[in-house]
Amino acid sequence: MAPHRIAPVDALGIDIGGTKIAGARVSPEGQVLSLVTRKTVPDSPEDIIAAVVEIVNELDAGDTIPTVGVAAAAFLNRDRDLIYLAPNISWRDFPISRVLHEALGRPVVVENDANAAGWAEYRFGAGRDARSMMMLTLGTGVGGALVTEGQLLVGGFGAGAELGHIIIEPGGRLCGCGNRGCLEQYASGTALVREACERLGRDDLSSDELMELFRAGSPEAFGALEAIAQALGQGIASLVAVTDPDTIVIGGGVAAAGEVLTESITRHFIQAYGPRSRRPVAQIVPAQLGNTAGAVGAADLARRPHRASP
Amino acid sequence: MAPHRIAPVDALGIDIGGTKIAGARVSPEGQVLSLVTRKTVPDSPEDIIAAVVEIVNELDAGDTIPTVGVAAAAFLNRDRDLIYLAPNISWRDFPISRVLHEALGRPVVVENDANAAGWAEYRFGAGRDARSMMMLTLGTGVGGALVTEGQLLVGGFGAGAELGHIIIEPGGRLCGCGNRGCLEQYASGTALVREACERLGRDDLSSDELMELFRAGSPEAFGALEAIAQALGQGIASLVAVTDPDTIVIGGGVAAAGEVLTESITRHFIQAYGPRSRRPVAQIVPAQLGNTAGAVGAADLARRPHRASP
Repeated sequence: MAPHRIAPVDALGIDIGGTKIAGARVSPEGQVLSLVTRKTVPDSPEDIIAAVVEIVNELDAGDTIPTVGVAAAAFLNRDRDLIYLAPNISWRDFPISRVLHEALGRPVVVENDANAAGWAEYRFGAGRDARSMMMLTLGTGVGGALVTEGQLLVGGFGAGAELGHIIIEPGGRLCGCGNRGCLEQYASGTALVREACERLGRDDLSSDELMELFRAGSPEAFGALEAIAQALGQGIASLVAVTDPDTIVIGGGVAAAGEVLTESITRHFIQAYGPRSRRPVAQIVPAQLGNTAGAVGAADLARRPHRASP
Repeated sequence: MAPHRIAPVDALGIDIGGTKIAGARVSPEGQVLSLVTRKTVPDSPEDIIAAVVEIVNELDAGDTIPTVGVAAAAFLNRDRDLIYLAPNISWRDFPISRVLHEALGRPVVVENDANAAGWAEYRFGAGRDARSMMMLTLGTGVGGALVTEGQLLVGGFGAGAELGHIIIEPGGRLCGCGNRGCLEQYASGTALVREACERLGRDDLSSDELMELFRAGSPEAFGALEAIAQALGQGIASLVAVTDPDTIVIGGGVAAAGEVLTESITRHFIQAYGPRSRRPVAQIVPAQLGNTAGAVGAADLARRPHRASP
């Protein structure tokens, strides 16, 4: 494999999510030099493209930065020029690369948002010393990213590293994907809220209320976090058999719990992994780059020579 | 990623297994030009090295072929120069690269045998049109190999693609690895024999007897095969969420059952994968290269520029 060859110039990264668009001008060292955000209008593709153009113009600041990466909460094709489906934006079979190339007057590199965030952690964050990295992003669902042999794992159909959809409980809880027992159903932020509600006899909890309970040392809230950690430990015991990461990064909203969470996951992982643990064991660490990881990763991916098919 | 750059010369591949050593002179197109085998003396590392030297001399046939690859049934370190452990050969922390370099007077490239066989199928066999390939080798245990983004997935600690050790039945059957419920316990050749014995009320069955039962159309034997296929379908439904292969190759002794087996696995996979199957679905196909795949893959790997760390 060729060593990293990265143009030593600033790049722009735009992270298009379901609720907001965040754009960053990013140095070759991964520093965010400037940051611009806009609210997303999920059901208007035209408004989203217009907002991206505005953000890019603002970040250009008079120059025309030729290197633009885009992270999107979407299922992409393997060649990363077509969005099959974006669950929270009204894009279906949308030729995003061509549309943005025309709108911005320069080529763009597109990547799935969980992959872009994982790439940022690998290059500049919690995975920067890793040779093989896995990232689990705990939010509404459980997102995933894998960096193996120095590359993002994209998969044969573009849907690699959907780590939330390994099955940890055959015949278990029904998942949005249609399957039963997916890791996502036991380890997402949504699952954390559900676990806490069950323990507290509540119907619903906002994430602010949940944070308050953690601050107050609520045993029910910590019990719910422990349940999430156990599911993750069990899932990771299977996942390590596939890609054998040396570093596992936990990101997303739930990861705000920090080392309380990663230490608990580690404990459950070692227990589930059991006697095999005489081998070197992956370290499990919190993500470091927070909300801008998607934009930073997209910018950095855009600086790299385009991946060639094997 | 750089395109394949392969020296257009013959290479030697040596597959060191627990019962025999097979050496092949292999053309750049993957053809076996000559084949030499010796029995393995599992408890004598010196005899194994001496046998490899004999085989290489015979395959050299007067030249000194500079390109030698070795496949070994062993846990290797990430740099592929040290055997941590070979379950069926008395090697512990054995510096195989250095020893063979000295014995053969030329450098060697070493790979795990399941990986080498998987590489051969990817380059010349059932996976030659794949962009992302997974191979499951059904023998005494369940071995695995993954080719993603044009490279063998080696993993952070050298133990990637141990696909037999994902957990399909939490708390299930005890595995040799110390865990419970590993795929290997439900889908190996060993499991097939156990399933057939249970159905026939027998204590044991040789693989020849089992083959005879298949030929005779025994419902018990086919029921056992169906049980194996179901476990594989279930395991594959999780595995595809991780690496998203477009091609899944089934190899090893059990794969001699051919398309009866792969069609049954496909049926169970689609059932377990369920509604997600509106996406493109990986094809599941029998291996094509048989017993020499390990030697062919090792030879081809030796022809390639050595992988660099990222």
